[in-house]
This record gives sequence, C-alpha cells and structure tokens, in this order.
Amino acid sequence: MKAADYPDALKTLIKELKRMPGVGPRGAERIALWMVQRKDARPEEIAHSITEVTAQIQPCKLCGFFTTEEHCEICRDASRDQELLCVVEQATDILPLERTGVFRGRYHALGGRISPLDHIGPEDLKIQSLVERIRNEGISEAILALASDVEGEATASYIASLLRESLVKVTRIAQGLPAGGGLEFADELTLSRALAGRRQF
Amino acid sequence: MKAADYPDALKTLIKELKRMPGVGPRGAERIALWMVQRKDARPEEIAHSITEVTAQIQPCKLCGFFTTEEHCEICRDASRDQELLCVVEQATDILPLERTGVFRGRYHALGGRISPLDHIGPEDLKIQSLVERIRNEGISEAILALASDVEGEATASYIASLLRESLVKVTRIAQGLPAGGGLEFADELTLSRALAGRRQF
Repeated sequence: MKAADYPDALKTLIKELKRMPGVGPRGAERIALWMVQRKDARPEEIAHSITEVTAQIQPCKLCGFFTTEEHCEICRDASRDQELLCVVEQATDILPLERTGVFRGRYHALGGRISPLDHIGPEDLKIQSLVERIRNEGISEAILALASDVEGEATASYIASLLRESLVKVTRIAQGLPAGGGLEFADELTLSRALAGRRQF
Repeated sequence: MKAADYPDALKTLIKELKRMPGVGPRGAERIALWMVQRKDARPEEIAHSITEVTAQIQPCKLCGFFTTEEHCEICRDASRDQELLCVVEQATDILPLERTGVFRGRYHALGGRISPLDHIGPEDLKIQSLVERIRNEGISEAILALASDVEGEATASYIASLLRESLVKVTRIAQGLPAGGGLEFADELTLSRALAGRRQF
C-alpha cells in the first residue's frame, strides 16, 4: 500500500503558489485547497487576472511606473509641475509618495540602488537616463527620495556628484523621527540625523 | 492634478489575490507587484497551474478525495483493506490521516458536518451514500474521524444511530491529550475525555 498524496496538478499548483512572496508551504496548500473546494473561489478569475497583468502592464518608458501604455498617467498629466522630478529607487516607491498628496511633480525610478556587494553599479541603474531627463526636460529641482541606509546614501551622493555641474537644484527628503514615534524608540543614528536636520520654528 | 494609482489590470489583480485565504490587502499588493516587477516571477506559470487544476481536479465519485479520474488513487488501490472505512468531514482531512501511515483502509468524506446554525442537515451531507457504501461494499468497521467539538459529536452520534441496525462495527478515534502536551496546557474537557478514555497498560 502506498500512502496517498494529492494529484500531480494539485501538487504543482501548491509548488507554484509557494513561490509567491509571503506565502509559505502551509499557506500555499491552503490556497490550493480553497481553489478546488470552495464553489465561490472562482480560481479561473484569478488566473485570468494574472494573465491580463502579464500581458498588459509594462514599465513607463519615461519614469518606470506601471502602465498599460508607453507613458504612465503621471508622466502624461500636464497639470503636474513639469520642473519637479522626484527620484526613487523602485517603481513601487511612487504610489506611497502619491498617497501623501503633497508632491505635485513627476518621478524617475532608478530600478534599484548602487550596491557593490550585489554587483549593482551605476551602469545597472537608470542614472544615465535620469541625467538626460534633467538636461532635456527643463527640470529645476531633483528630489532624491532614496532609502536612508548606506546604499541609499551612496546612490544619492553619486547622483548629486553627477549633477554638480548642472544648474539643477538637488535636494534630499528629510531624515528624522518617524510620525508618532517617541524619542525612546528612535535609534542613535535617527536621532543624530533628526538633530542635524533641525529647523527653526 | 489627480493622485496616481495602479493601472486597472493591476488593481483588479490585487483585488482577486486578496480573495485567497490568508492573503490580506498588503500581501495581495506585494504578490501583484512581485509578479510585474521580478523577472523570475513567471506569473504565467502560476496562472497556467491554476487553470490546469480547475480543469483537471474533481472529487472522487466514491470517497470525495481529489482526483483527476472518476475514482481516486486510494479507492483504486486494491492493496488497501477494503473492509475498513474511515469517515471524515472534509476531503482535506484525508491526507493528514494518510501521512500518519497507520490507517490502511479507505475513506469517505461527508463534505461537512451537521450544523443547525448554518442550516446544514444530514441531507446536505454524503450520509446516505455512506450508509449505501457500508451496505454494498462489505465494510466491517466504520471509523468516525470527526472533529471533537459539539457539531462533530452530533454528526458522529447521528451516523452511529443510523448504523445501529446494521452489522458494521462503528468506532470513533480517541480523544485525549495531544502528543507533547503536558497536563497544564489541557482544558478540562480534554482532560475529562482523556480520563474517560483511559486504557490499561
């Protein structure tokens, strides 16, 4: 007697679902069984939706944000301040900034950050195209919204050094206490940066 | 100026992924972005796998386990004890029992349990077909492996009462201390059942 197991198609599905971020072996099994067991699961709609996204979504030729056309809705929005360019690491960093409702310019996603340990140099990122955009699109201010860790700092410094000769104003987003965070939860580096970045009332 | 959002196809995908059990709004967004961003994500393989499972997998006509054919590999396995039938609530309860390697008979999934609060009565479950199987397949022992809660108990009692007239031996899996569990973690009901089910050394 052989101990029974799921049919191959189901085992394959569990293996495939397990590749998704945040989904472990148990979670994958649970989702797969939900798909075959629940009448209201409609897994074919999920499959269809994945296929649609794979076929339709591409990075914006200009800024790297997700779009179904050549240029994304942000780059096509003429009501935005065309002189303000916010530089982010990933296309996924754009929506969090959009949701603040504060920034009215456009974006440029580098596609990562300089990281010698991962063999990622400036030539692997969209830095050349950033310099060209700044030169050609009449950008007056480039806001570097990169991570506040070593690699983010290094990437920001590198970009700032490239733009030193140009007339564009290069700024960085502030570092300091996160909203709602008391001093007792802040590490020393955050505190020292919050002190260094203090502003007059 | 309108705050940007993901393209519709991406928003639809996030909504669809969110329907999966154990996947929240953040998890769904993370999976969707992983699908559009990572070159090694191969989302089309996940979609294909879902489609395959939807097309291929069906419940075994006899026991309810997952199969691509009319009868599952367990029901087709002639080396199993054909007189032993283990009754479970869900088809998903079968593999955990299989993995113990202890049970050598076949199964019967009821498709749920009697639950008046959810308007699930005996006629909504595969109880009639269970009685027929026991009568027609020469079953000598029916092991009720149902949950140890009120509804599982009620379902077990109901089935046992139906089979009282027949010659089949009806047993229940034991209730007691879970493996590795000390007495200090066991609730009163578990302890009282463990006491009631005590066996001689």
